Amino acid sequence: MISKANIQLVKGLQDKKLRQKYGQFIVEGEKSIAELLKSPYKVTKLFAVSEWLNNNQLELKQAQVFEVTDQELKQLSSHFAPQKVLALVQMPDWSNHQSKGPWVLGLDAIQDPGNMGTIIRIADWYGIDTIVCSIGCTDVYAPKCINSTMGSFLRVKVLYGDILKYAQAADLPLVVADFNGINIHKGPLPQKGLLVIGNEGHGVDQVLLDHAAYELTIPKFGQAESLNAAVSAAILLDRLKA
Amino acid sequence: MISKANIQLVKGLQDKKLRQKYGQFIVEGEKSIAELLKSPYKVTKLFAVSEWLNNNQLELKQAQVFEVTDQELKQLSSHFAPQKVLALVQMPDWSNHQSKGPWVLGLDAIQDPGNMGTIIRIADWYGIDTIVCSIGCTDVYAPKCINSTMGSFLRVKVLYGDILKYAQAADLPLVVADFNGINIHKGPLPQKGLLVIGNEGHGVDQVLLDHAAYELTIPKFGQAESLNAAVSAAILLDRLKA
Repeated sequence: MISKANIQLVKGLQDKKLRQKYGQFIVEGEKSIAELLKSPYKVTKLFAVSEWLNNNQLELKQAQVFEVTDQELKQLSSHFAPQKVLALVQMPDWSNHQSKGPWVLGLDAIQDPGNMGTIIRIADWYGIDTIVCSIGCTDVYAPKCINSTMGSFLRVKVLYGDILKYAQAADLPLVVADFNGINIHKGPLPQKGLLVIGNEGHGVDQVLLDHAAYELTIPKFGQAESLNAAVSAAILLDRLKA
Repeated sequence: MISKANIQLVKGLQDKKLRQKYGQFIVEGEKSIAELLKSPYKVTKLFAVSEWLNNNQLELKQAQVFEVTDQELKQLSSHFAPQKVLALVQMPDWSNHQSKGPWVLGLDAIQDPGNMGTIIRIADWYGIDTIVCSIGCTDVYAPKCINSTMGSFLRVKVLYGDILKYAQAADLPLVVADFNGINIHKGPLPQKGLLVIGNEGHGVDQVLLDHAAYELTIPKFGQAESLNAAVSAAILLDRLKA
């Protein structure tokens, strides 16, 4: 049984302002939650159907656990497919995190939460542990973004701030994708850097372009005007990490 | 002013069965429609606001053109952002199309229309003119898929059928992505083939795996369990076309 206050809380966390007010966000789905429970992330409340609770030995000392019906969970969920478990999780604070790796990803005004989640998953595949988002990016803690990461939000630290300042402080050259740079099939390619992925409609901010140490271009063989941001990020990282 | 019959027709074309019954599909948005009007595709009806009609000299001999208000267009549209023009287009029949290029893409049970649209756009970027979809794939003419192609549906021929039979008839080796194949960063890579992209949840069908002449693997540097289908297609094509 779920109280009205909890329904309101979970539904409220669909909204960025309330996420920030409560410092919490939603994680859904068995796979992501299995990984979440093994991570250092702090679960505050967990809502699950009896089947899931019977199959999972929980050691959540500080979390409140609620058994709910399928119907109740459906009411809380933003998924189309039925889920068995949903957790509220405390937001981490990565604002002072400094990456130690040779590559950091910078996202400039990425608007689509599904695209941002996909990029976080790609970063995790390529072993990138830090993403710096410009203030104009969508909120990483939006349910659609967290869902799209397929659990990778647990391993990739996403912080918001000034991409140029971060690169300078980390002593990483700015690497920007555009249409007139080094052909990534030919190189030579940089060995480290902060790779900036721009907004699809408007590209990369002019200030970042002005400070780019490297401009890279994905060669085109056909006629599509562009590639989406997540696809570009994947192709570039696959070349840079090779 | 738009008639009830036209509202019903456009709304009906959101549905696969009615698209097949009428042999028509919906294209939205100024950019896609500008490309559409220069293509050999046949527009049957076009709904546009007066501003768009004033700025576009139409030579649509067989199409009916309707001036509509923003409000009426919003009612027809599946987009969140307001559009200025929407067209109904006759479905082409590519069932007997044979590609002449060295690479064809095969999609095995791809379910998400946005993902499929993104793959069509990637194929167009890499100059692939033909995609063979297994019967289990989502419908390419779903509005969400057509929107996601960003106009590339006009250049890439998408047909439904048996991927293995197509490869054999076209004399192209089957190339399949999995976890134990040739590392694409090392090669050697095939020079031509039918590259099969599988369903994210279930991978590539066993029959196709059994007939694969090449298995390719995207090397992983981090911990994400997998990459999405469109992202995998992009990384593989970028290596195969280099």
